[in-house]
Amino acid sequence: MDKLSVYKIGGNVIDSKLDLHLFLEAFAQVQGPKILVHGGGKKASELLIKLGIEPTMVEGRRITDALTLEVVTMVFGGLNKQITASLQGLKCNAIGLSGADLNIIPAEKRIQGKTDFGWVGDPISGKHIETHTGIANLVHLLESDITPVFCALTHDRKGNLLNTNADTVASTIAGKLSVFFDIELIYCFEKDGVLMDNKMVIPKLSRVEFELLKEKGIIHSGMLPKIANAFEAIDSGVKQVKIKNSQNILNNIETVIA
Amino acid sequence: MDKLSVYKIGGNVIDSKLDLHLFLEAFAQVQGPKILVHGGGKKASELLIKLGIEPTMVEGRRITDALTLEVVTMVFGGLNKQITASLQGLKCNAIGLSGADLNIIPAEKRIQGKTDFGWVGDPISGKHIETHTGIANLVHLLESDITPVFCALTHDRKGNLLNTNADTVASTIAGKLSVFFDIELIYCFEKDGVLMDNKMVIPKLSRVEFELLKEKGIIHSGMLPKIANAFEAIDSGVKQVKIKNSQNILNNIETVIA
Repeated sequence: MDKLSVYKIGGNVIDSKLDLHLFLEAFAQVQGPKILVHGGGKKASELLIKLGIEPTMVEGRRITDALTLEVVTMVFGGLNKQITASLQGLKCNAIGLSGADLNIIPAEKRIQGKTDFGWVGDPISGKHIETHTGIANLVHLLESDITPVFCALTHDRKGNLLNTNADTVASTIAGKLSVFFDIELIYCFEKDGVLMDNKMVIPKLSRVEFELLKEKGIIHSGMLPKIANAFEAIDSGVKQVKIKNSQNILNNIETVIA
Repeated sequence: MDKLSVYKIGGNVIDSKLDLHLFLEAFAQVQGPKILVHGGGKKASELLIKLGIEPTMVEGRRITDALTLEVVTMVFGGLNKQITASLQGLKCNAIGLSGADLNIIPAEKRIQGKTDFGWVGDPISGKHIETHTGIANLVHLLESDITPVFCALTHDRKGNLLNTNADTVASTIAGKLSVFFDIELIYCFEKDGVLMDNKMVIPKLSRVEFELLKEKGIIHSGMLPKIANAFEAIDSGVKQVKIKNSQNILNNIETVIA
C-alpha cells in the first residue's frame, strides 16, 4: 500500500500569517499523497466578539448557537479557500473541502444528558454509514496527485453543518482511508513533541508508557485528549501517529505514538 | 456528448434563506450532470458595514483592498460550505469549490489605466494556461455523479484569491468544459427572462435582435452585461444560454439566447 500523510494544524499556526506561510512552504514539499486538516484558531472567537455576539455557556462549556455556527462557518470556509490558494501558489495542487463535501464525514449533533451543545457534531462511526462513494472519490483525488485540505466542519446529512474538533476530523479521515493507504497521522503544534518534564522530547510512546506517565502527572492537561485521539486513530487502523512542531515538519524531532 | 447544465444564482436568491432553499430543492431535482455557481449577495457588504470597514471607491467603483478581500472570502467561503451541506441534505452529492481549487480558474489582477482595483480578478483566457489537469479532474467529478458548487473567487497562481464576477465565473467554467459536454448555461435571477416593455418574456434572442432592442432602449442597464456575457459564452463554445427565474427553474418560461 502507498503511504499517506495526514497533517493536522491548529490555533498556534493559523493565528500567525508568517507561521502559517512557513508551515505551508514545508508542507508543499512533503513527498507522496498527503492531506491537511486545519482548525480556525482564535479567528472565530475574535470575529464573534467584533460582531458583539455573546458566548452562550452551559456548565462552563460553549454552546454553538445558530449565529455562532454561521460565524464559525465563514471563518473556517474563508481560511479553507485561502489555504488552498496559498498551496496552489506553492505549486501544490490543493482542493479545499469540509466533511459535508462528497458526504465524507457524516456526524451527529452532540447531546449529552440534558445539555444540547448546539451545532456541534461527532462523526458517526461504523461501516453501515454510506460514505464509500465519497471515500472512493477522495482516494481518486489522492491518486491524481491532488492534496485535499479539510476544515473542521462535518454535517448531519439533513442540510446542517456541524462544528467539530479538528483533531477528531483528522483522525476520522485517517481511519476511513486506512483501508487504502498506510497512514501516518501527524499532529502539529507549538512544541517539538510530547515532553518529559517540559524539556526532553519523548521519542516513542506506547500505550503502557502513556498510562504510566499520565499516572505520574508527567503528561497532563491539553496533551491528554491529543494522545487519546492518537490511540483511537491507531485502533481504527492508522499505522502510526506523530506529534511534532508545526515549524519543523521536515526534520525528525517528534514523538511517535504506536 | 453528454449535456451539462451550469446554473448561476445571484443576490436575489442568496439574500433570502427561503428563496435559496426553494431554489436548491428544485436544483437538486435537475437531471444529468450539473454545476452551480453562486455570488455572495448583500452579505459581504453587510458584514463589511458591521465590522466598520469603509468602502474604498475610486471614480465611483469599489476597490477590493486586503481587508475587504478577507471579508469577501469568508462570506463566499461560508456560503459555499453551507450550500454544499444543504445540497447533501437534499441527496445531491455536492462538492464546494472556488476557482483556486485544482487551479480551475487562474486569473489576473485587474489594473485599468491608473486604477488598481485591488484584489479583483479577470480569468485568463487562452489555451496556453495549464488548467487541463484541473479541468480533467472536474470532468471526472461530473462523470461520478458529483455536483460541483463554485463561489465567485479565482486566484492569481501566486497564492492570492481574487474577487470575480459570478456571471463571469459561470461563463468561464462553461467555456472550459465545452470541449467535453453540450453545455447549457442558465443565468437565474428575479424575473422570468429578458422582458419586452417590462412585461412579456422574449422567448428567443439572437445577436441581431439584441442589438436592435438595445438601440431602441428596450433592453437596458443591468441586463446589458448579462446578455453580453451570454454571447461571449456562446463564442467560447457553450451551446445555449438561458435567462430565467430562480424560483421556476423546472418550468419552460425563459429567454433562450443563441
